[in-house]
Amino acid sequence: MYYDIATRVYNHTWKIDPVVRSVLDTDFYKLLMAQMIFRRYRDIQAVFGVKNRTTSVRLADIIAIEEVVEQLDHVRTLRLSPGESTWLRGNMFYGKRQMFSPDFIDWFERFRFPEYQIEKQDGQYALTFHGSWLETSMWEIPALAILSELRSRNVLKGMGRFELQVLYARAMSRVWEKIQTLKTLPQLKISDFGTRRRHGFLWQDWCVQAMIEGLGSAFSGTSNCLIAMRREVEAVGTNAHELPMVYAALTDSDEDLLRSPYHVLRDWQEDYAGNLLMLLPDTYGTESFLKLAPEWVASWTGIRIDSIDPVVGGDMAIRWWEERGQNPKEKLIIFSDGLDTDEILRIHEHFHGRVRIAYGWGTLLTNDFRDIAPGKMLDPISLVCKVVSANGRPAVKLSDNPAKAIGPADQIERYLKVFNVGDQKVLPVIV
Amino acid sequence: MYYDIATRVYNHTWKIDPVVRSVLDTDFYKLLMAQMIFRRYRDIQAVFGVKNRTTSVRLADIIAIEEVVEQLDHVRTLRLSPGESTWLRGNMFYGKRQMFSPDFIDWFERFRFPEYQIEKQDGQYALTFHGSWLETSMWEIPALAILSELRSRNVLKGMGRFELQVLYARAMSRVWEKIQTLKTLPQLKISDFGTRRRHGFLWQDWCVQAMIEGLGSAFSGTSNCLIAMRREVEAVGTNAHELPMVYAALTDSDEDLLRSPYHVLRDWQEDYAGNLLMLLPDTYGTESFLKLAPEWVASWTGIRIDSIDPVVGGDMAIRWWEERGQNPKEKLIIFSDGLDTDEILRIHEHFHGRVRIAYGWGTLLTNDFRDIAPGKMLDPISLVCKVVSANGRPAVKLSDNPAKAIGPADQIERYLKVFNVGDQKVLPVIV
Repeated sequence: MYYDIATRVYNHTWKIDPVVRSVLDTDFYKLLMAQMIFRRYRDIQAVFGVKNRTTSVRLADIIAIEEVVEQLDHVRTLRLSPGESTWLRGNMFYGKRQMFSPDFIDWFERFRFPEYQIEKQDGQYALTFHGSWLETSMWEIPALAILSELRSRNVLKGMGRFELQVLYARAMSRVWEKIQTLKTLPQLKISDFGTRRRHGFLWQDWCVQAMIEGLGSAFSGTSNCLIAMRREVEAVGTNAHELPMVYAALTDSDEDLLRSPYHVLRDWQEDYAGNLLMLLPDTYGTESFLKLAPEWVASWTGIRIDSIDPVVGGDMAIRWWEERGQNPKEKLIIFSDGLDTDEILRIHEHFHGRVRIAYGWGTLLTNDFRDIAPGKMLDPISLVCKVVSANGRPAVKLSDNPAKAIGPADQIERYLKVFNVGDQKVLPVIV
Repeated sequence: MYYDIATRVYNHTWKIDPVVRSVLDTDFYKLLMAQMIFRRYRDIQAVFGVKNRTTSVRLADIIAIEEVVEQLDHVRTLRLSPGESTWLRGNMFYGKRQMFSPDFIDWFERFRFPEYQIEKQDGQYALTFHGSWLETSMWEIPALAILSELRSRNVLKGMGRFELQVLYARAMSRVWEKIQTLKTLPQLKISDFGTRRRHGFLWQDWCVQAMIEGLGSAFSGTSNCLIAMRREVEAVGTNAHELPMVYAALTDSDEDLLRSPYHVLRDWQEDYAGNLLMLLPDTYGTESFLKLAPEWVASWTGIRIDSIDPVVGGDMAIRWWEERGQNPKEKLIIFSDGLDTDEILRIHEHFHGRVRIAYGWGTLLTNDFRDIAPGKMLDPISLVCKVVSANGRPAVKLSDNPAKAIGPADQIERYLKVFNVGDQKVLPVIV
């Protein structure tokens, strides 16, 4: 499969290039989480909602609602194909065959994306999904990819073939130079986490090829299942905030709430092992999470540092392991928050040799058109799709960066008290 | 016509992509000079020869002789097509219709490239053309373009599709950035002079499109007739060293030799006018040329500064005009020697507002793959095709840079004496 992206973008009609082209055109962690939910929480009801944290970019002014509806409706026609099912059943994930049990894949074969609700609100799309947690959760990545790619398409609409060719030539050169810089890092392990906020499917696919060609074994895979299948690379990813958020929402007391993040871990380790045992500590504050963690939590393989400053968060994790008699050199830290080359160099400089490191490179891999598209029109935005409630109870996320907090004000206040979160530092949210 | 260069290069067979694809795939000045020779010197015999001044790049080790022969033979099958003939007859050149007389075009329609002789010598190709001056002269550009493009093809051979795509993306980004830099210059006038040492035909064609798109009216045309015709831009160029070199070779006394450069001008102005009245003063030293020039020479439109440092040569011309009561602000200086953006910025800074300026941008427009191709394998080389003799007498060029002198040593010595050339400064020859 080889194509000239500029030509495809110039000629594209959504019939040959829909934004989402397969049930597998999603992040691998959604499948791992879905299986866990399938096994334990099939009956939980949930609401997911899309939020554009970059309010200055008025998506509803850029993208016509008909286009969003058309793409969302297209996603609702998708079903897992026999070849895709075979790949899920037979492929090795994280060194293991049969990662997904037959009953889960049976469900997945019958799965169709549930209904959605969309309306305009203050120049943004209020896009929500109501239904079972298992099904609504599957919308996260396709919904984000649709808004992200439709934004690109609308900005590029009307550009000539030559302009598009130069635009993609410059974007390719930029990605390639970034890769050449990263390549110099000792023991680099980096993967593509850029599905959700990608410039477009073809572009993400190109970026993955660039990583394959440029990094060789330092490239450890893509979060995108469809691309992983087609390009024959590892599908990667573990879990997300929605697990502790739903577990927390379902508790009935402050005491249960405080313990809920560890219930997630307990369930997770029943289903998964090895490099999938990655802590995501920041949902209600990294410091509190580590301090209150039962002893067995320190034996997990590693930790994903997300909303906290990576150097601060990584150092915190290393100290925590040391205090619990663990050897940090055998532990893995995954960094994945708004990474770009400079940030990766800084992190590598600080941590290399002290701990195993891996990077999940997202938006600034698959959607860095800063100064390439006219008038900053494609500068990255912080678009998220989060669980809003579970069984009618509000879902809350504090995170280490209050700019990323989610939930009703009174609940945020309650959670801050329960988790005994002290002063938090506001960091700029790039993506 | 739109194509993906990386794909074409990857798939190319010379049948669909010969290096030279038309009799018009040559520089416009060859046609102007040919018409002048056709009218006056149809019977003069000449020898042209290719020389690679960058001896460290052993072309005969890079390109198989069979490939060169195949391409040269292909050129010998070319004839002016009816559409091309119509364009030459009907198009406006330098503001004038019927630049070429019907009898010249009749000859051109019947023209076929004459025989060539090729052999390997010290890792280079000794490629020579014997015959009438009129016909052998036509080989200059195709011969250079063939060696230049076959070098590129051989270096790129074996690169994968992805590598080629990145290579061209980077080259496109580079050309585009150069154009964005140049664009800022006030009253810029720049044209493409890059046929002879181009990376390839498709690439030159792309560079011209980039100039059209990026520079608008600051782009004044291309020396390549075929591209000028297809892209509907101006065909540009005036005359070259071969005219004074042949005129000089045909003289019988030192006195006639000294006067011969001005005989060229006298003939030229019988045929051409306006912006075609461009002096090329460096064949036997710019200083001597200007000092000895008859009064009427100063009334020509302008001068092309070639082998001398552009600032020194330009200042010399301005002083010379002023001494002869001419207003430099009405004069045109064309710079065309080894230009790149930095050099153009330096020249513009020095001369802008004092004289009209135009740039003929050659190799570093159409063949700048420095640090893009692996191992400096496509760094520019100084490949020329020059007249070696006329009617059996050796042709000589001194130029302002002794590194560019051509001819037998005893003749060079004689010419240096006759033209009273003093100390010359050796400048590095980039292209």
